[in-house]
Amino acid sequence: MKKNALYAQSGGVTAVINATAGALILEARKSNKIGKVFAAENGILGALREELIDTSKESVKSLISLKHRPGGIFGSCRLKLKDIETSEQEYNRLIEVFKAHNIGYFFYNGGNDSADTAFKVSQISKKLNYPIQCIAIPKTVDNDLVLTDCCPGFGSAAKYIATSILEASLDVQSMSETSTKVFILEVMGRHAGWMAASSALARTNKGDAPHIILLPEIIFDQRKFLLEVKNTVKKIGFCVIVVSEGVKNNKGKFLSESDTKDAFGHSQLGGVAPYIADLINKKLKLKNHWAVADYLQRSASHIASKVDLDHAEAVGSYAIKFALSGMNGVMPIIVRGKSKKYKWNIKAAPLSKIANLEKKLPKSFISSNKMNVTSRAIEYLRPLIQGETASPYKNGIPHLKEFKLIKVKKKLTNWQI
Amino acid sequence: MKKNALYAQSGGVTAVINATAGALILEARKSNKIGKVFAAENGILGALREELIDTSKESVKSLISLKHRPGGIFGSCRLKLKDIETSEQEYNRLIEVFKAHNIGYFFYNGGNDSADTAFKVSQISKKLNYPIQCIAIPKTVDNDLVLTDCCPGFGSAAKYIATSILEASLDVQSMSETSTKVFILEVMGRHAGWMAASSALARTNKGDAPHIILLPEIIFDQRKFLLEVKNTVKKIGFCVIVVSEGVKNNKGKFLSESDTKDAFGHSQLGGVAPYIADLINKKLKLKNHWAVADYLQRSASHIASKVDLDHAEAVGSYAIKFALSGMNGVMPIIVRGKSKKYKWNIKAAPLSKIANLEKKLPKSFISSNKMNVTSRAIEYLRPLIQGETASPYKNGIPHLKEFKLIKVKKKLTNWQI
Repeated sequence: MKKNALYAQSGGVTAVINATAGALILEARKSNKIGKVFAAENGILGALREELIDTSKESVKSLISLKHRPGGIFGSCRLKLKDIETSEQEYNRLIEVFKAHNIGYFFYNGGNDSADTAFKVSQISKKLNYPIQCIAIPKTVDNDLVLTDCCPGFGSAAKYIATSILEASLDVQSMSETSTKVFILEVMGRHAGWMAASSALARTNKGDAPHIILLPEIIFDQRKFLLEVKNTVKKIGFCVIVVSEGVKNNKGKFLSESDTKDAFGHSQLGGVAPYIADLINKKLKLKNHWAVADYLQRSASHIASKVDLDHAEAVGSYAIKFALSGMNGVMPIIVRGKSKKYKWNIKAAPLSKIANLEKKLPKSFISSNKMNVTSRAIEYLRPLIQGETASPYKNGIPHLKEFKLIKVKKKLTNWQI
Repeated sequence: MKKNALYAQSGGVTAVINATAGALILEARKSNKIGKVFAAENGILGALREELIDTSKESVKSLISLKHRPGGIFGSCRLKLKDIETSEQEYNRLIEVFKAHNIGYFFYNGGNDSADTAFKVSQISKKLNYPIQCIAIPKTVDNDLVLTDCCPGFGSAAKYIATSILEASLDVQSMSETSTKVFILEVMGRHAGWMAASSALARTNKGDAPHIILLPEIIFDQRKFLLEVKNTVKKIGFCVIVVSEGVKNNKGKFLSESDTKDAFGHSQLGGVAPYIADLINKKLKLKNHWAVADYLQRSASHIASKVDLDHAEAVGSYAIKFALSGMNGVMPIIVRGKSKKYKWNIKAAPLSKIANLEKKLPKSFISSNKMNVTSRAIEYLRPLIQGETASPYKNGIPHLKEFKLIKVKKKLTNWQI
């Protein structure tokens, strides 16, 4: 009897995480070697609660439409499993659910933390004696996973940011003589400045916006920053700034810190743009405007990058291929070719070398004044935002197909945290 | 000898103001009855300074590309001319410039204030004895001009807002079980709630986001609002809120100006979205995220509405037609047909009945709980976001053609304010 598969999304969604889900499910159907693909409702939580969605009830048309669908169709969550030793109860429960539903493959679609969880699950086979193949599938707008050349989700966020900066900077430029002189866009990126860096893709000619990029890898130097703003306004009449939510001061504190923490214990960030705006008001008395893109930047399927979408689908279908070839504890990663023309392919990389590690911007990508990125950064980033995806509209808004989302009948007693 | 024309943009730009400029210039060329079309650099300021761009130097291809170009290609400004009596100097200078460059037509592309200026200029003929025909062309994301059914620029901002809310709400929904429960998007609209109202177009089914819309026409009722947030989260698991920047409290103060402090005792740095977020943190202790769209919403040509783009081009070409038919002191307005299927045409309306007036959301568009809009509002709004414009990309970002922007040789002495 064919083994079934369980697919779960984890952490913040991206513009293309559903594309990965669609490609994975369709590939599994095509292979004819996997029973059913169940999707855990709300990520790993659904696996523990035995809330499993039977994707075999969904039409091929619906599954294809996932390519363009924002959000996470099956729900996601932030819940990090600890070591098998300290969280034995959770792992035992997972095995119970796996057994009850004849699950032989577990696909976990997420970032660093999820790669760690997937790695632990991949070890269940040995440690708890249950045969399960576990594949982690990369997904994160943060682009901070190691080994893979880039992370599905990032390219689309990068395209959103570059386009938004291009559009907003033309707006500011039009009005700068008598109105706004400084525009600030806050983007995501807690520890790594990939998203902020991608704003540099808005440039075509020298002097084009953005003029200053504040990266979380660099300690904020207020004096140097204000001088650069002042000089830019003097030179070209206005100044466009992109600031990463994760920028810290020389005391190691986020420029704007909130008192709330998420389930992983990370502080919840937001509000560095108004901090910078306030600084410019007080110290330079320059009229400014600011925007905070927040979820808009990571869910903007309407402006997804074609290359990113292709990556997202490829890691989904390769996850199935790798599982069927007998692999366990791996991640399909994107490998960039060495030729000048952008080429890529998918390889398997061991989760032990990925879990919990974080890829920041390399030094060679940061300009000497530390408020910008180098041409090497742009060479790396440019291919990732190429192409548009012609996402479908209906009635003036993105078209969402209906999904049945029918749950599998439970076989176990309720699970309590 | 044919008279020349002067075109000037005024106030904040929109995603389609350049489309109006392009259509106007091309229509003037086609007519063969107008000499050259000059464009004032940075709006009326350029007219006073005699900084005139000769659009006859631009290729037809470049002018067609204005259809999709964000920002204001010739620059804009915020400068309101006073009465002819009190600002005689400015009006005399305008006439000097008009005379020096044989200008017989003045086209002023803006909102309320610009309609007022245009109205005053249209009276120069009589009062200062210079023959000039002045046509104001509507443009404002605020959608607050009277007489016209809608304002070019609004439909595209509305489409941006509806799409962004749809995408972000799917994001929030995916994660709401363990993470963010409330999402807040701040949109523009100081006095009129058209932009906030347009977020309702994101809905397809009952219960879809946005769940609460805070309009500047309605005094903020904190108790009622918090109760609605709480009940929405209880009922459907999350709550999406759209708030207009212009919402005021019962003391007539903008919420964003309220003197509030965050959890660390720092005073809150502007923005009504962070104000609402802070309120929800303190009073409901619900995890939330917020975004401020700011300039992104009014400059997003990449997601312009086709209907809005058509309006923008039509008012541009009709401005020429009206001028050539001898009209003065009018605005081409958009008139909606009475049939169920959306139809529209352009008529001329007198500026005396438009200048300085402001169209707010009618009472019939606001729901009985005052935190939402009615189906009548949606019926009005829906046609304005229909259709996509296939704006061109190059290298992953919106493609901008080069413009020459060659200035006309000055004939007068420098103007000093």
